[in-house]
Amino acid sequence: MSHKKHFIALIGFGTVAQGLCQILHDKRAELFAEYDFDFEIIAVTTRSRGTMYHPQGLSLSYLLELAATTDPFSDHLINWDAEDMIRNSNATIIVELAHSDLQSGEPAITHCRTALGTKKHVICGNKGPATLAYNELKSLSAKEGLHFLNEATVLSGTPVFSLMQKTLAGNKVLRIRGILNGATNFMLSEMESGSEYEQAIEAAMAKGYLEADRTADVEGYDAQAKLTILANILMDHPLQVKDVQCRGISKLRPHDILAAKAENKRWKLVATLERERQNIHAEVKPEKLSLSDPLAQIMGTANSITISTDLLGDVTITGPGAGKIETGYAILSDLLTINRGESS
Amino acid sequence: MSHKKHFIALIGFGTVAQGLCQILHDKRAELFAEYDFDFEIIAVTTRSRGTMYHPQGLSLSYLLELAATTDPFSDHLINWDAEDMIRNSNATIIVELAHSDLQSGEPAITHCRTALGTKKHVICGNKGPATLAYNELKSLSAKEGLHFLNEATVLSGTPVFSLMQKTLAGNKVLRIRGILNGATNFMLSEMESGSEYEQAIEAAMAKGYLEADRTADVEGYDAQAKLTILANILMDHPLQVKDVQCRGISKLRPHDILAAKAENKRWKLVATLERERQNIHAEVKPEKLSLSDPLAQIMGTANSITISTDLLGDVTITGPGAGKIETGYAILSDLLTINRGESS
Repeated sequence: MSHKKHFIALIGFGTVAQGLCQILHDKRAELFAEYDFDFEIIAVTTRSRGTMYHPQGLSLSYLLELAATTDPFSDHLINWDAEDMIRNSNATIIVELAHSDLQSGEPAITHCRTALGTKKHVICGNKGPATLAYNELKSLSAKEGLHFLNEATVLSGTPVFSLMQKTLAGNKVLRIRGILNGATNFMLSEMESGSEYEQAIEAAMAKGYLEADRTADVEGYDAQAKLTILANILMDHPLQVKDVQCRGISKLRPHDILAAKAENKRWKLVATLERERQNIHAEVKPEKLSLSDPLAQIMGTANSITISTDLLGDVTITGPGAGKIETGYAILSDLLTINRGESS
Repeated sequence: MSHKKHFIALIGFGTVAQGLCQILHDKRAELFAEYDFDFEIIAVTTRSRGTMYHPQGLSLSYLLELAATTDPFSDHLINWDAEDMIRNSNATIIVELAHSDLQSGEPAITHCRTALGTKKHVICGNKGPATLAYNELKSLSAKEGLHFLNEATVLSGTPVFSLMQKTLAGNKVLRIRGILNGATNFMLSEMESGSEYEQAIEAAMAKGYLEADRTADVEGYDAQAKLTILANILMDHPLQVKDVQCRGISKLRPHDILAAKAENKRWKLVATLERERQNIHAEVKPEKLSLSDPLAQIMGTANSITISTDLLGDVTITGPGAGKIETGYAILSDLLTINRGESS
């Protein structure tokens, strides 16, 4: 293990960043004792609250106080935007968590490019860069001997890339099948319990599960982007979003769900990747599963993925698909990967 | 990654060793290209066929030919028993796969001790050493900067220790609950499909799932040993076999299974570890689970474990609980851990 101190800069200060700060605050001593992980958060940059910077490190308990408000930053304030911060700070790791749309992937792609170009590791919690520019950014990071890590983008806190690359190392992925969107899985569970479609939407909104643009969830675009990332990272196959056939759950209504139940079946929004000679078949669509299908048992916001491998056969991992601490953990998982000093 | 060549010695040449040899034969080039894993098998020692040794490496395809017979070894034969081989060969990694009983853990414990004492990493596929002497052997390996790895002992090929220590690093384990014995899970599935208890036993024997002493499976002793290992490794709590309350499935009959089915429930042999203040409650017993319990859906020889963590909540992994290539893979998983050169 390295004894190097990491200087971490956060772009964005929403739920995931705050979850990360909470974990780092609570577990600082334990992370040092067990993993030799030594760090400071040296910058937090936001569009609405400004940029805070202190090259020797910001106080984590102070950051947690700020998390409870939406006031503009005042302490350690500096007149930098995210690009300035990446170029001019002493950060060794950039954690990109700002909002970016899935059409352009900006500004996150530019942030990642600048960070790698100025020799900083990148942990990107946005789906944009890994969906739209994975190969470019991965090649750039490999050339510089840096990490470009994306654990938070798929299965939230459940580290599926680490699972495959470390825990299942030596296996080849033949097929992936999963429930990748917690919001729609929650809605389907709600409708099975008697809610109408619109009530299920409202319940998911009230709990903060749906994205601002709900079509991302209900039309399957979120699962489509995640499937693209899985193909890029786990199957080493450069897939584009448009290569993933996509249909969401927006046409499913309680009577469909109850009719399936009467047949001992259950509708799920299933995402599938399958190798076909030199190609990959990629599809997101609602499927009426037999109750004996492991994916049929995934309820609420849980996510689950079955990875079919050449040596081990099917391995399924099920874990949380949402949550502040859970998603914050995915960033910690990537930080510990960098700290282990393994090649990327 | 290290560029060091590993010299591997196998103690035992049964199913797991043969599965490992098959994988190493088929994937040699790929393992070198992707993981920089460079190795030779330099010794194979058995009680019934003798010991083969060649310091520059034995041919893997020749080893696979030998796997198809039970003839005494003839090529590269040397007059060493396992202890001689450990002490006198140029092995850097000892893979201990010989039979040992769960009362004494011998001769495997002695083999592990000798190997660590002569500065060799140990991969132990036997449950004996990790069940009965984990703390001693782990301390010895840590003192010498060596690995003492046991991935094949629990969940066969599914690398649950690597999952927790690498993929879920940073989490604390609060509770573990799982189906750890594939043979009895297969028998319960058979009885649900209409077999009598004795027919289920015969079917499990015919497929090679039951151990020679079937009480190890049906009375729960196998799961009890595995639970002890899980407590030692994942909960860092020195548990002894006798601390695990244990009841098997030997009293369950088809009418119990069908009665449960009529209530929408299913009997499973469930193993549980739970922290209770400074102690751990450990128990193996048949439980009548609701069908919505994820463990109720694990059929046939599959194994599954739900790890409740402080940060991520419940994470469940399901994978194969038996099989030559699958269990052979667990040894490869440990070999790749050593190759990554991480501290143990």
